[in-house]
Amino acid sequence: MNILEKYAIKLSNISLSGINKIQQLNNSSIRIMSSNGTPAKKPMLDETVNQDDITDFSKFELKRILSNNTKTKVCFVQGTFNKKETPAIIVLEKKAFSEDSLKDSAGGFLSGKSTLTKTFTNDVYGNYECKTKTDCNGLKTVIIYPATEQQIRKFVDQEVYIIQETPDIYKRLVLPYMLNEKLSVQWVYNILDDGKEAERILVKDDCPENGFVAIPDLKWDGNDISSLYYLAIIRKKGVKSIRDLNSSYIPMLKNVRDKVLAAIKEKHGYAKEQIKVFFHYHPTFLHLHIHFVYAKYDAPGTSCDRAHLLETVINNMEMMDDYYEKATLSVMVLEKENLFTILKNEGVLKLQDKE
Amino acid sequence: MNILEKYAIKLSNISLSGINKIQQLNNSSIRIMSSNGTPAKKPMLDETVNQDDITDFSKFELKRILSNNTKTKVCFVQGTFNKKETPAIIVLEKKAFSEDSLKDSAGGFLSGKSTLTKTFTNDVYGNYECKTKTDCNGLKTVIIYPATEQQIRKFVDQEVYIIQETPDIYKRLVLPYMLNEKLSVQWVYNILDDGKEAERILVKDDCPENGFVAIPDLKWDGNDISSLYYLAIIRKKGVKSIRDLNSSYIPMLKNVRDKVLAAIKEKHGYAKEQIKVFFHYHPTFLHLHIHFVYAKYDAPGTSCDRAHLLETVINNMEMMDDYYEKATLSVMVLEKENLFTILKNEGVLKLQDKE
Repeated sequence: MNILEKYAIKLSNISLSGINKIQQLNNSSIRIMSSNGTPAKKPMLDETVNQDDITDFSKFELKRILSNNTKTKVCFVQGTFNKKETPAIIVLEKKAFSEDSLKDSAGGFLSGKSTLTKTFTNDVYGNYECKTKTDCNGLKTVIIYPATEQQIRKFVDQEVYIIQETPDIYKRLVLPYMLNEKLSVQWVYNILDDGKEAERILVKDDCPENGFVAIPDLKWDGNDISSLYYLAIIRKKGVKSIRDLNSSYIPMLKNVRDKVLAAIKEKHGYAKEQIKVFFHYHPTFLHLHIHFVYAKYDAPGTSCDRAHLLETVINNMEMMDDYYEKATLSVMVLEKENLFTILKNEGVLKLQDKE
Repeated sequence: MNILEKYAIKLSNISLSGINKIQQLNNSSIRIMSSNGTPAKKPMLDETVNQDDITDFSKFELKRILSNNTKTKVCFVQGTFNKKETPAIIVLEKKAFSEDSLKDSAGGFLSGKSTLTKTFTNDVYGNYECKTKTDCNGLKTVIIYPATEQQIRKFVDQEVYIIQETPDIYKRLVLPYMLNEKLSVQWVYNILDDGKEAERILVKDDCPENGFVAIPDLKWDGNDISSLYYLAIIRKKGVKSIRDLNSSYIPMLKNVRDKVLAAIKEKHGYAKEQIKVFFHYHPTFLHLHIHFVYAKYDAPGTSCDRAHLLETVINNMEMMDDYYEKATLSVMVLEKENLFTILKNEGVLKLQDKE
């Protein structure tokens, strides 16, 4: 595992957030960075500031806030150290409440050390500002220094658009874009053909038609089952996404579903109804794969404009064999993706329209 | 607006979170509380503790953690004051990073007043624990005291199950449950027939067949367009949910879509592609309504196991007139809902199964 991959995993831990750039990070960059073997070019190291010597932010100068998620309480800022030009990215995240800090009646959040300033009270309801001991209320902080332009771009807030992808738009514009830009699936073939990551496999089936390999998603630490997240990769090659599916694939899909759910039940105790099983469309990489997530876990990438439940996909094809060949599918596009520019130039996205 | 309703709105502000009970709160309790006019019975006031006198937690004793959302950094705990029996609920939430506190180079988060303790560094990546001045790092706190058993139940963590609702299960079990338990729609009729909330209307259409009224959802403050959330209520009565739709409703659905999106564009500047338009299934109340949310906003209730995009619904009925009469729909059910018990007793949910 290279450094960027390690960092990506770490970042996915600190930022289980719904905002899009973080979703992107969670969903793709781990594999972006490890799959093609060419991590982003690193900038020159700044010899005047050594990360090991940083003990506070007195030498840091804020340039701009890249993004600030008020729901997950994570923010990304860009700045410099020691008035040098070299950019730094700082990720600040409020920590979750630990059970220990809640139960510590001597100095924790719910102790006499926390002072309450009333905003207002009304009948049984009171609103307060609470100030606590610094010790129990720290921040998780990541410093990326020096940072590349590419890294900075990744953390900048960007708009989200929902596009209606007709079969014609898919064939004419989206498919060529995907074939050109989507990630290498060499890492998938390494798993399927060369036994890579064999020690991580939850369950597999070697049937060339209906087989698959299921492994923990790289976002998941593999331990905390409240954020359980498996990925099943189908053995058959050449099926790029749900767009390529028709009813002939239903036996394969049901085989994957049943065997992975049984393995999750066996290993982790969750019933099949406790697992959300879905595809992404657009997917991150063009080899059919299925996500298995603990239903209570508000995982990234489960929003209705990206995630398609496996049961719905099967049901659609049972009702209409060629559903995914004929359907208009809603697709989430980010403004910094090349697809956004393509769709705008081709007049699919007419942002000036009033209807 | 009664006190419970006010509090519900306030709670929805502090807890734009993905966890289910809070989603439930956000999605329904405002209207639960205001629609039938019978707020939950209040407990006796505890005369020994007055909310106005609470200035710290020294008199508070923790009984249990009701739930702890590590993603949104909100926790709900139950306890007592002064060793009395009367229960209290405390809601603690880490505050979002304010721009001011990031930019304050004298005492803010990114100042010399924040100390960094290294966890590890590796090349350009450093992980730290950051301790800050107490002043910039407070908590939002709500105290409900005395609290009812009903309120406590609402905040307890509960399991989520995803059920495959066939047309038969719908007719035999779910529809009777819905008709028995779902909320009164009197408040909807008040808006449609009696001009209630007229001052809040974004846009309306009085056509008895295709008309609607669109108002800001009660979750939304109506100002901050980064969390824009409108609700369009169709004028025609007797359409309970998407289950009742067929292609004859497509002109009505397109009429609502086009007019609400045009009004949002006119008033707030968002293009139609920047708005996520969807139904809930199951809905909270049985009168067809459509949600319009800013696409970038990670709103509650947009997960693929609950939200059905309007465009997908239209497309499905264009491909197959009676899609929603024939389809098996995935439905999220919470373990404390009566529907969960019904489905379990009827053998639809077989949690002991291994396949």
